[in-house]
Amino acid sequence: MTPTHIEHIGIAVKNLEESIAYYEKVLGLKCYAVEEVTDQKVKTAFFMVGQTKIELLEATSEESPVAKFVEKKGPGIHHIAFAMDDVATSLKEAEENGVRLIDKEPRAGAEGLRIGFLHPKSTGGVLTEFCGKK
Amino acid sequence: MTPTHIEHIGIAVKNLEESIAYYEKVLGLKCYAVEEVTDQKVKTAFFMVGQTKIELLEATSEESPVAKFVEKKGPGIHHIAFAMDDVATSLKEAEENGVRLIDKEPRAGAEGLRIGFLHPKSTGGVLTEFCGKK
Repeated sequence: MTPTHIEHIGIAVKNLEESIAYYEKVLGLKCYAVEEVTDQKVKTAFFMVGQTKIELLEATSEESPVAKFVEKKGPGIHHIAFAMDDVATSLKEAEENGVRLIDKEPRAGAEGLRIGFLHPKSTGGVLTEFCGKK
Repeated sequence: MTPTHIEHIGIAVKNLEESIAYYEKVLGLKCYAVEEVTDQKVKTAFFMVGQTKIELLEATSEESPVAKFVEKKGPGIHHIAFAMDDVATSLKEAEENGVRLIDKEPRAGAEGLRIGFLHPKSTGGVLTEFCGKK
């Protein structure tokens, strides 16, 4: 497995509206979608930068992983998602290489994609997502 | 100003050799350059993923900003660099929009590029770099 590109960069924010305004006004990007992912208890906003999306994440509940992240580390860069042709196989290969997985099998993510997370304890502190159509 | 793509993602690591091995073995990426940036007191390693580089950063001194980051937050994602046509103008425009700058003027970065950093206090906790040829 080799990632084809960085699919998105997830950024934990305190206030989605204020953060959208920053990315639009200061960086000149255009928010093209706002979506709630109930499974992850987050509201998300998307911007395209070349091949890569910026995904802003605001927690909708105190139990959201994003709420816990913000409480512990403050708002900021939350995870990197690598675009993989086959998420299920890539997760399996990572596990065979000794990586601890958060998701043993792909599950549904934003924008209808299949996603799976690697545990940051196995990846040098980088919460790493694999992301793709299958 | 609008960034054309994500130029690179900077990742703070404790041990460059071990981290290179992880990105090569587990993610199937190829390290194409290792460079020391004496100005920033870091050793860097580069990987290409689509349009975007992964830039691993190991501190070479306790006074390195990367050493301070790792001490405070642990290893992990350190900054995002947006590719800009004109770094000097982009920094000026960001400042006019109320952003606090770390670098008022572009300076020399890795790979011969001009770079400038925005302060994370102004960017929702995201250490943000502008990066380009001028």
